[in-house]
Amino acid sequence: MGDEVKVFGFWGSPFSRRVELALLFKGIPYEYIEEDVLGSKGPLLLQYNPVHKKVPVLLHNGKPIAESLVILEYINETWKSNPLLPEDPYDKAKARFWAKFMDDKCMPVIQKAILAPEKEREQAAEEACECLKALESALNGKRFFGGDAIGMVDIAANFVGFWLRIIQEVAGVELLSAEKFPDLFKWTDEFVSCSIVRENFPHKDKVSVAFKARIDRMREAQN
Amino acid sequence: MGDEVKVFGFWGSPFSRRVELALLFKGIPYEYIEEDVLGSKGPLLLQYNPVHKKVPVLLHNGKPIAESLVILEYINETWKSNPLLPEDPYDKAKARFWAKFMDDKCMPVIQKAILAPEKEREQAAEEACECLKALESALNGKRFFGGDAIGMVDIAANFVGFWLRIIQEVAGVELLSAEKFPDLFKWTDEFVSCSIVRENFPHKDKVSVAFKARIDRMREAQN
Repeated sequence: MGDEVKVFGFWGSPFSRRVELALLFKGIPYEYIEEDVLGSKGPLLLQYNPVHKKVPVLLHNGKPIAESLVILEYINETWKSNPLLPEDPYDKAKARFWAKFMDDKCMPVIQKAILAPEKEREQAAEEACECLKALESALNGKRFFGGDAIGMVDIAANFVGFWLRIIQEVAGVELLSAEKFPDLFKWTDEFVSCSIVRENFPHKDKVSVAFKARIDRMREAQN
Repeated sequence: MGDEVKVFGFWGSPFSRRVELALLFKGIPYEYIEEDVLGSKGPLLLQYNPVHKKVPVLLHNGKPIAESLVILEYINETWKSNPLLPEDPYDKAKARFWAKFMDDKCMPVIQKAILAPEKEREQAAEEACECLKALESALNGKRFFGGDAIGMVDIAANFVGFWLRIIQEVAGVELLSAEKFPDLFKWTDEFVSCSIVRENFPHKDKVSVAFKARIDRMREAQN
């Protein structure tokens, strides 16, 4: 097809990983450009995402697209193989609802439950459990949110699927467990067992070390 | 078609108004159920949107959908007349980007610039102006965000198109003016001149009175 596809991302961002996962599942080759999100932002990132100035950005034949969920829709519409969304408008709406739920509610409260000052963490942990309970109900006994295959919700939920179990262990906060959310926990096992995830996601130790440093920085700033 | 379409909304919510506008532009008759968002939530609203427990909810042949932007996509896919999104995947991605921008950045900072405690308002007003500037650039001289006709971004931006000029006047805070953002200001005139908006949106005085009461309540709570 002669398509030029580039992803501006950060290895530790579940948002960038969404874009990469979608391209990998579709089998679309891409060039990956790592951004230094903790340091100064690259001029191309600022040029391609002037409004939010953040990763991920997808560049397709020179045209930039920002916002990970917007990018997933674009990828799904541009490359038809391995659809990430169901065909039926109502099933599609449900998938979009849960993907959006990850961004608007689930990820912010989980982050708060782990990283907020101690006195705010307990309340946030309760809210985080409500979110995980909602996800467990959305899974509804299926192997993946998308049914038998990984779809947009699974990709959008990679923060819960891969990162959460590692970072909650580092932080010493148990939000997601097999006892509390058996289906969701099993889903995280299925998710990381998938070859595309296993072969492309970072090693657990790298995540632990980077997250430990982040927690230390934040808790130091809070004291 | 024998479709049963119901909207659970609140007259003063720009989010509910999105759903109504989309149905009106598509010419789809619907039954409207007003929810008392300030009082106790109706049992049907809680049943249909158990995760967020808020308006709007679209009920189509008994199936509920929540989240206004998800509902707009559903409406656009279910009823094909008067498309709210462009066909081209890249143009569609741009429209989705700006619709999402309204929710994630524009509306929260404008609300903060008007309703936050005084010492936070100045900073928020600067950020709000950045958002309005970004919208002005997205409009890019077009009559509507959707081009010659109202589309998803225009509908998503009804808060700026209709409500903002009324509430900023009540609050005594000028964020959007013809001097600062001529194209966007002109767009708000075009937006409210559209017969569907003019005939279905509340009278300016009703909005002023309700918003004045809201500001008084909030400022009292802040003192």
